[in-house]
Amino acid sequence: MNVVKKRRLGRGVSMVGAGMSRFGAFADLSSRDLFVEAYDDMTTLMDKGFDTSDIETMYVGNFSSDLFEGQAHVAPIMSDWLGLTPKPATRIENACASGGSALREGMMAIASGMYDVVLVGGVEKMSNLATERVTDTLAMAADALYEIPAGLTFPGIFATIATAYIHQYEASTDHLAKVAIKNHANGALNPKAQFNKPLRDIMDRRIARAKERGEPVPEWEDELDFLHDDRANPLVAWPLRLYDCAPITDGAACVLLVADELASSFTEAPIKVIGIGQASGRPLHDSESLTSLSSAKAAAEEAYLMAGVGPGDIQVAEVHDCFTPAEIVATEDLGFFEPGEGARALDEGRTTIQGDKPVNTSGGLKAKGHPVGASGVGMAVEIFHQLRQEAGERQVPNDSLELGLSHNVGGTGGTCVVTIYQRG
Amino acid sequence: MNVVKKRRLGRGVSMVGAGMSRFGAFADLSSRDLFVEAYDDMTTLMDKGFDTSDIETMYVGNFSSDLFEGQAHVAPIMSDWLGLTPKPATRIENACASGGSALREGMMAIASGMYDVVLVGGVEKMSNLATERVTDTLAMAADALYEIPAGLTFPGIFATIATAYIHQYEASTDHLAKVAIKNHANGALNPKAQFNKPLRDIMDRRIARAKERGEPVPEWEDELDFLHDDRANPLVAWPLRLYDCAPITDGAACVLLVADELASSFTEAPIKVIGIGQASGRPLHDSESLTSLSSAKAAAEEAYLMAGVGPGDIQVAEVHDCFTPAEIVATEDLGFFEPGEGARALDEGRTTIQGDKPVNTSGGLKAKGHPVGASGVGMAVEIFHQLRQEAGERQVPNDSLELGLSHNVGGTGGTCVVTIYQRG
Repeated sequence: MNVVKKRRLGRGVSMVGAGMSRFGAFADLSSRDLFVEAYDDMTTLMDKGFDTSDIETMYVGNFSSDLFEGQAHVAPIMSDWLGLTPKPATRIENACASGGSALREGMMAIASGMYDVVLVGGVEKMSNLATERVTDTLAMAADALYEIPAGLTFPGIFATIATAYIHQYEASTDHLAKVAIKNHANGALNPKAQFNKPLRDIMDRRIARAKERGEPVPEWEDELDFLHDDRANPLVAWPLRLYDCAPITDGAACVLLVADELASSFTEAPIKVIGIGQASGRPLHDSESLTSLSSAKAAAEEAYLMAGVGPGDIQVAEVHDCFTPAEIVATEDLGFFEPGEGARALDEGRTTIQGDKPVNTSGGLKAKGHPVGASGVGMAVEIFHQLRQEAGERQVPNDSLELGLSHNVGGTGGTCVVTIYQRG
Repeated sequence: MNVVKKRRLGRGVSMVGAGMSRFGAFADLSSRDLFVEAYDDMTTLMDKGFDTSDIETMYVGNFSSDLFEGQAHVAPIMSDWLGLTPKPATRIENACASGGSALREGMMAIASGMYDVVLVGGVEKMSNLATERVTDTLAMAADALYEIPAGLTFPGIFATIATAYIHQYEASTDHLAKVAIKNHANGALNPKAQFNKPLRDIMDRRIARAKERGEPVPEWEDELDFLHDDRANPLVAWPLRLYDCAPITDGAACVLLVADELASSFTEAPIKVIGIGQASGRPLHDSESLTSLSSAKAAAEEAYLMAGVGPGDIQVAEVHDCFTPAEIVATEDLGFFEPGEGARALDEGRTTIQGDKPVNTSGGLKAKGHPVGASGVGMAVEIFHQLRQEAGERQVPNDSLELGLSHNVGGTGGTCVVTIYQRG
């Protein structure tokens, strides 16, 4: 079925504001608190006059507040807490791609001519549940009939993908570790990241503590040593270890979308959303490949066609690194690197902030954190700041940054949304 | 905040196909089976050539497959089961208004210029859980922080609304019973309804059974007697009794939306969707009124403005009768009747199939059944058939039916979606 085609929005859409809450584990905050925190962050950063009453409708990406907080129907609750009632509010759920899909709905709401100003947010409050129950809840994003009863949970699923990748391309667990090292280094530069320490600091602290206590001092020469040590970094599902997995995170993010022609009344530096592609994929047990997500390739192809750019043009990207192998596969599905070359690109440092293809400058889901329904919107927030040269210490050192991309996956590619952004 | 305004879609949208599964309790069917059944029903009824590959994207209204079936991320699963992969598929959740909100997203997807042919479905598989657990799950559509801990579940919430209405307008429980009698009579004419028997049949069967068994024969003169009898119709939450409550239902529904200019290649009798309004409302504990839903009034006002028609023009309507008082309030919020007059209209038979304002010809949620995520789409299916004069025994006897409306509520008006349809 030839389905990928060049699509066009009837009106151009610009992002004129972006904010996020701190990402982390906050026992005393609910989804509503986090959503308001993200919204306040956005409005505080808005360049020009903005009033909440400017917003005409809103979307909330959320995976399962039902199971995490006993609260379904979250969209009107968020609308109430922002003072937006009776503006229409709609929850979008596509597992960990809920935020990306919410962004797509927001764009179409504007392009449809129905609305000019749309708030797109995402939120998840996950730390209420014990870790095992979070893992069970997340597993519902896979196939409950054919996969969950077979014992598949997401660490197992991405361990399978990692194993296949390592086998097929003669890669190694070093490559997985290098994703973690890079993204923790980036997260260390992001004040809102859940882990804002480089792995070296964590390693050094453990060495110092062993010395203090008079225990045997671990002989780690570098972070790779540290990450390969069973006690420092326990196995979760071979070959994935603790630091290969994104954490359990509470957090929210939001962006303000407006029709292009209105952008200048909100900011001098709008970011245009020039391409978006979403695709669905069959569950993993029916996938053709374990080292590529068909939905990511289809979504990317549509986004590139719509934007009229190619992978070589993208200067900064946030990709869905829920587990370290996912980032490697993403950079290949997006066409940044040939199949099998994603691992080499890590060896060469090409995806660091200083590299030629910076990936996950925010720290990614891995270090910034992964409040699942918010993650896709959080990616847009990072690209917004990068393209506006306001990403602080983690700013990509390129004065003429113009094109960014986000890649947001739900499940094992049941959904993928790829979005392309351009400095206005 | 003056928020209601005349909105316009950039392109007109027509409904060219509609189908639904049987509604009921089906132990051996999952959501996917029901969704496929609805889709097959739709395609079987399509007038002209249609191929699944014509569909470009899809929406799935679903309240909580997570809690009902342990399956989140349902949209790509449905897409897979219809053979639509890799077409983008997105789940919309706004509690019992999920289907109505999905319809709105489908319309905007077309109006945006991104897509020409969009499938909008809804599904819920509820009968897996014990009744108390269904009630707990549905309660999550209210406010989990302020209402659920106070013991509010939906029967209690709508009992509160009923009590307030009866008090404010000198109405009685007879009016509630009359909604049930009318809608069960309509459901008896709908082969897909969960209850396709008039209440009189149920009453007569119980009388016959008592006679057979030599038990005291109940002295019910009519259905009102039957419905006011504690043993025939036990109290759930005063003044609501069993037959005041919509049942727990498994079911699915879908409609095919296309850009107006393409409608004639799918059918000779398209139904245009000429108006849609969605609004959010504050939770019940913060509402200004117990006898009206502010979101319903705002949504209706926007839908009427967009369609350029008024309540007096509507010739057939499906409204959200999750409990009998909800139908009465709905007919007033929609402007069909003045506040307090909805009850009188029942006394006068105005909302029967033969009345001047037929409401819930399908049997409504009350008798057709209420698979919550599917209900809003199911309403569109009924209006589609009514306006095309193909509703069989329950067809409104008016050869020149032209305008229909659906009114779909989530929670206690946290969300309301009103949609207006016109024969093409």
